[in-house]
Amino acid sequence: MEGPGSWSSSGGVGRPLTEDEMAEVKKDALERMRPYLCDKIIAERHFDYLRSKKILTREDTEEISARSSSRKKTGKLLDYLAENPKGLDTLIESIRRERTQNFLLQKITDVVLKVKNEKLEALKDCPDNENYAFQRNCFD
Amino acid sequence: MEGPGSWSSSGGVGRPLTEDEMAEVKKDALERMRPYLCDKIIAERHFDYLRSKKILTREDTEEISARSSSRKKTGKLLDYLAENPKGLDTLIESIRRERTQNFLLQKITDVVLKVKNEKLEALKDCPDNENYAFQRNCFD
Amino acid sequence: MEGPGSWSSSGGVGRPLTEDEMAEVKKDALERMRPYLCDKIIAERHFDYLRSKKILTREDTEEISARSSSRKKTGKLLDYLAENPKGLDTLIESIRRERTQNFLLQKITDVVLKVKNEKLEALKDCPDNENYAFQRNCFD
Amino acid sequence: MEGPGSWSSSGGVGRPLTEDEMAEVKKDALERMRPYLCDKIIAERHFDYLRSKKILTREDTEEISARSSSRKKTGKLLDYLAENPKGLDTLIESIRRERTQNFLLQKITDVVLKVKNEKLEALKDCPDNENYAFQRNCFD
Amino acid sequence: MEGPGSWSSSGGVGRPLTEDEMAEVKKDALERMRPYLCDKIIAERHFDYLRSKKILTREDTEEISARSSSRKKTGKLLDYLAENPKGLDTLIESIRRERTQNFLLQKITDVVLKVKNEKLEALKDCPDNENYAFQRNCFD
Amino acid sequence: MEGPGSWSSSGGVGRPLTEDEMAEVKKDALERMRPYLCDKIIAERHFDYLRSKKILTREDTEEISARSSSRKKTGKLLDYLAENPKGLDTLIESIRRERTQNFLLQKITDVVLKVKNEKLEALKDCPDNENYAFQRNCFD
Amino acid sequence: MEGPGSWSSSGGVGRPLTEDEMAEVKKDALERMRPYLCDKIIAERHFDYLRSKKILTREDTEEISARSSSRKKTGKLLDYLAENPKGLDTLIESIRRERTQNFLLQKITDVVLKVKNEKLEALKDCPDNENYAFQRNCFD
Amino acid sequence: MEGPGSWSSSGGVGRPLTEDEMAEVKKDALERMRPYLCDKIIAERHFDYLRSKKILTREDTEEISARSSSRKKTGKLLDYLAENPKGLDTLIESIRRERTQNFLLQKITDVVLKVKNEKLEALKDCPDNENYAFQRNCFD
Repeated sequence: MEGPGSWSSSGGVGRPLTEDEMAEVKKDALERMRPYLCDKIIAERHFDYLRSKKILTREDTEEISARSSSRKKTGKLLDYLAENPKGLDTLIESIRRERTQNFLLQKITDVVLKVKNEKLEALKDCPDNENYAFQRNCFD
Repeated sequence: MEGPGSWSSSGGVGRPLTEDEMAEVKKDALERMRPYLCDKIIAERHFDYLRSKKILTREDTEEISARSSSRKKTGKLLDYLAENPKGLDTLIESIRRERTQNFLLQKITDVVLKVKNEKLEALKDCPDNENYAFQRNCFD
Repeated sequence: MEGPGSWSSSGGVGRPLTEDEMAEVKKDALERMRPYLCDKIIAERHFDYLRSKKILTREDTEEISARSSSRKKTGKLLDYLAENPKGLDTLIESIRRERTQNFLLQKITDVVLKVKNEKLEALKDCPDNENYAFQRNCFD
Repeated sequence: MEGPGSWSSSGGVGRPLTEDEMAEVKKDALERMRPYLCDKIIAERHFDYLRSKKILTREDTEEISARSSSRKKTGKLLDYLAENPKGLDTLIESIRRERTQNFLLQKITDVVLKVKNEKLEALKDCPDNENYAFQRNCFD
Repeated sequence: MEGPGSWSSSGGVGRPLTEDEMAEVKKDALERMRPYLCDKIIAERHFDYLRSKKILTREDTEEISARSSSRKKTGKLLDYLAENPKGLDTLIESIRRERTQNFLLQKITDVVLKVKNEKLEALKDCPDNENYAFQRNCFD
Repeated sequence: MEGPGSWSSSGGVGRPLTEDEMAEVKKDALERMRPYLCDKIIAERHFDYLRSKKILTREDTEEISARSSSRKKTGKLLDYLAENPKGLDTLIESIRRERTQNFLLQKITDVVLKVKNEKLEALKDCPDNENYAFQRNCFD
Repeated sequence: MEGPGSWSSSGGVGRPLTEDEMAEVKKDALERMRPYLCDKIIAERHFDYLRSKKILTREDTEEISARSSSRKKTGKLLDYLAENPKGLDTLIESIRRERTQNFLLQKITDVVLKVKNEKLEALKDCPDNENYAFQRNCFD
Repeated sequence: MEGPGSWSSSGGVGRPLTEDEMAEVKKDALERMRPYLCDKIIAERHFDYLRSKKILTREDTEEISARSSSRKKTGKLLDYLAENPKGLDTLIESIRRERTQNFLLQKITDVVLKVKNEKLEALKDCPDNENYAFQRNCFD
């Protein structure tokens, strides 16, 4: 069983993805899995772990709890996680600690790897890849 | 005892009401009965049946439950039901299953028939009734 | 044994009260007697009879039993009864069956008659009383 | 000894009641007899037989015994029996074995037959009765 | 004794359903049986088994127990089970262990098979079924 | 037993306070006693009496009960009472009925009289006091 | 008499499990044996020993005794024991003292060793295991 | 018995930490231990002691008790304690009084000391440490 951090190790372009690019990959993956995760994840369960790892503050958890349905709560949680480079990794650790939703881990790993490979493909076709770290893809 | 669907069978204009028109009738009837139904109906009791018939989703029920009084909960429930052509019919079935509020069934039937007859009257006075199905009445 | 429904037979306005009006009268009477009944009635004692007459469901009795004091339990019971046109009548029958609280019967009858007479007075002053059955009083 | 299941054999609609419909009939009959049975039946007497027939578990009997009066105990017992298609039949067998309350048997049989006939009447008025087994009535 | 997972073995489209599709089938079946299961299942009885199989955590059981009626408790339990691919299977195992509600097993199996067949029919009409695993049906 | 309304009888300006002015006085007194009353009063205890006197509706009591601490509940109750000219009087009657908090009665009376006297003083200094009944004080 | 703590002595990774890891192992083992232990253990029998060893307080035993069936009582007892690093060991000592349930001892030991070995396997695959004592697994 | 406050006595920067800095340390430690403490601590047990030391008010305890699971209750308790400079110390005293969770004391002390040392390290690298007491670290 490979750790969640293992997906950022290698790349097909001759160079590994930078941290910023990997953060983009995770953000994009979270976006694609959004409907699935909003069904499966109960936001409150992960508050304590995410706060202890300083991914969420107490105020963030209050903002999330103020939503009126569990899907909206999870949606807000994913918004917070997407903005933090370690957000998705810490969520995965929290899911692993809970133990009742291990089936989610494989799914998330699959999607992240899929998005990462697409990114690597795009970078191969696009030689000018030393540019501004915040850009989403090489076409804008 | 006639089934709840029976009110959509005949009409006085020479033609029965279309499904869209009947949906309008039910929506209008729900609106008129609103104060009465908000007093009588306890929203949570009908969640299971309405979910099993795919009238409400789990998220809808969470939204309803987040309200702070039973009247507001029922009000929100009626809003959801009004937007679904089968909403009122399924609520009636659920009331019949509960058995303790059969007195509501006659009331609801009476109001729906009253609104339906008004609709038929309006259509009689208004020959151009083959138009756009989503319009509310024939005057706009 | 005169039935509890006997109070709905006559009226001073030249016409008897309609069923809806009488339901309003009973609901109002239950509201006025609330502090008195909450002291006197033990909700659990009437569950079996009220369930057999389809005034309460099993779920209703569970909701009532979840309250933390007997006054709150009876209060919740009265809320359920108030919404059912036959609620008060069936409670009276159940009290009569128990036999230990017959002193309640006279009290309840007195209050219902008092509220009914007030209703009849109000109707006398207000000739337009053939209107829409769901309205609460003749002033809207 | 004729089995207690004998009441489910014939019907007036040209077809016998399905198992689900018969389960509904028994559940409804138990509900109607509730005040009577709660007075007459002593729950603990039937524990051993009901456990041997796998209608109750040990945990169920503990839950029942934790109630504070014999009426409440019997009430809880009836709740468990109502949810099991063979619950009422097994209770009848247990009463018959005890021999001291045979007068109950006739009463129970009468009520079940009465409810069953009402059910058959309702079905006669409603020809479309070959549908989905979980529905409670024939109107959907 | 055939395992509860046996229903996922064959399919009529030339290929068996994927795990994701089967999870969808079970979730949909739970939704349809909701009113029936909420009547029959007592949530607390299954806590120990579901916790030992890591379907529920202790916190989940506390959330369920905080509800005020047994129907609401079971409703919440079903919500948790629906989100877990193995939720329904484990519930079935737990029912089988209890032994007093074996009549539920046939019902549940029937509904799951019915929903599964509907799914297979839908897939047959829709050739493009090798796509993204998270999608719910073939129409988006 | 002197009625709680006795404090509105006389005034030092040559004329008694109008009903509107007295309602202002009571509202102001409730505001000043707020921290004290929030500590001492348990809102739920007064629901039945206040509902029977039509100061609160069932919906109001549900709104109050939805608060998460007894201080917040009492605070919300005081908000409702402050808007009703008879709110404070009815609360006093309810406290008197309970009998365990008679020490509150003297305190409340003192504060109301104090506020009333301040009001009378203000009116003396301000001859133009026949104006618009809804104004709060004579300076705007 | 070998102490129950003897299972924490050796490990296959070259290092023994830390106290925290061993506490996790016991907690997990208790969770897996839950349905079995809830059937077999009578909570009240172990109160005196567990209180004398300061695993339970008097308040804990009162909380346990307030449950309505013996299964629920044992379930609550296991929840308390799982949170205490010495909880399971002390329970084992108490079972040994009682002498009538020695068959439980082997079962418990087997499950604990099984969980422990799984833990050691997971640690072997993951060399970086000297980190922060509160983490549950070796992947952060 | 050394007091829990003993950890605030010395420092490695040539000066001890100020009270505000120490409060920051404890708040940070509570945040890091959050998942662990939420599992282990039962909030209600510490209410009486914390109220007697004026760390919690009656209203705080009601707010905590209104949560639906024990983890959420403890989470809320930790939020209150984190905002009070003496919150953690008083919790430690309360744990020591209970005697059944002494294993927690060592853990908490370890984490507080670890966080404190990190703080001292940060202060050493940053000579300008006589500034505004409310700042969190020396980098803003």
